Amino acid sequence: MRIHKDQFQNHDMSKLIKGAVVPRPIAWVSTISRDGTRNLAPFSFFTVASMNPITLCFSVGGGASDKDTLANIKETGQFIVNIVSESLANQMHETSLQYSPEEDEFEKAGTQAEPGDFVDVPRVAESPVQMECELDQVVEVGTNSLVLGTVVGYHIHDDVYMEKDKVNPDKLKPVGRMAGDYSYIREFYSLPNNDLPK
Amino acid sequence: MRIHKDQFQNHDMSKLIKGAVVPRPIAWVSTISRDGTRNLAPFSFFTVASMNPITLCFSVGGGASDKDTLANIKETGQFIVNIVSESLANQMHETSLQYSPEEDEFEKAGTQAEPGDFVDVPRVAESPVQMECELDQVVEVGTNSLVLGTVVGYHIHDDVYMEKDKVNPDKLKPVGRMAGDYSYIREFYSLPNNDLPK
Repeated sequence: MRIHKDQFQNHDMSKLIKGAVVPRPIAWVSTISRDGTRNLAPFSFFTVASMNPITLCFSVGGGASDKDTLANIKETGQFIVNIVSESLANQMHETSLQYSPEEDEFEKAGTQAEPGDFVDVPRVAESPVQMECELDQVVEVGTNSLVLGTVVGYHIHDDVYMEKDKVNPDKLKPVGRMAGDYSYIREFYSLPNNDLPK
Repeated sequence: MRIHKDQFQNHDMSKLIKGAVVPRPIAWVSTISRDGTRNLAPFSFFTVASMNPITLCFSVGGGASDKDTLANIKETGQFIVNIVSESLANQMHETSLQYSPEEDEFEKAGTQAEPGDFVDVPRVAESPVQMECELDQVVEVGTNSLVLGTVVGYHIHDDVYMEKDKVNPDKLKPVGRMAGDYSYIREFYSLPNNDLPK
């Protein structure tokens, strides 16, 4: 099937795109408002923008929960990307629900907050990797805002860290985002691999 | 362990970042040079930038293979993102190797090219989803270039398409990019899920 852009209005393109750009990593983004309210929300339009300086980017849509994150980042210029392991997936999901701006998702999800070392934002203590970021720029793209942040601090749990700066994927046990569901990330292979289906 | 940005030079931050921002989807990007040479290369710093208009983005680094893709896109303003299923992983890997600009990765990988309907770029016929894109903008970020493209045409194989515009993940069988390895994407779950490890 082929769908031209003139026919996009006749399809649920959101589903077709979210189902095709998979699996997606999840940025569990913590921020703080000017008046001190903590915010924590997941974003799966998330990737690396640059390796030097190390810059992460994620896309914020027009949803209400998204707006708190974006407003906080614009106010403070700071955020922390926390990586979600399987053991944190339910708590991450909890923070994807709709809360009013003054509610604290750290409390809602029952996660432990630790202060950032390099930015004045709380990080999720249980998260295996936490990356402290300073806002580089916000690029407006259609309905969304692409938030680019420079990594200024990198935290990794000792049991996930392997020698020579490798991250142990069996310990990280990350969560892959699909269209609506999630994928286990537990079995790995290298390429070329002649055992793959033809 | 915590690593401040002043200590990044003492670590292989590339490994620490690529091992943490996982699993990553893969954009297998086809382009064509002004003189007609076809190019095909994979990029795993790839996500959705906006849902309306539908905009994809991927980050191009300073590598030689990356440079052909970027040069072609800047010349023609067009590219196609082909999605990689397990059955295409070895061919995708083949196109990640180093070739000179005049070499044709479609031939090297033995993939079938079909002309784009909406842009003058070949697409990978075997790829389950192919998204034709017009360049929106290139955002320079450190050593990298973030390429943003508006989707103008969407192709999906009939066996992957499900009613109500869902993409069948069991048929798509996508490839997840890890630090150096790849992840099977075959088992899915919804949240909340009380069977996950604590």
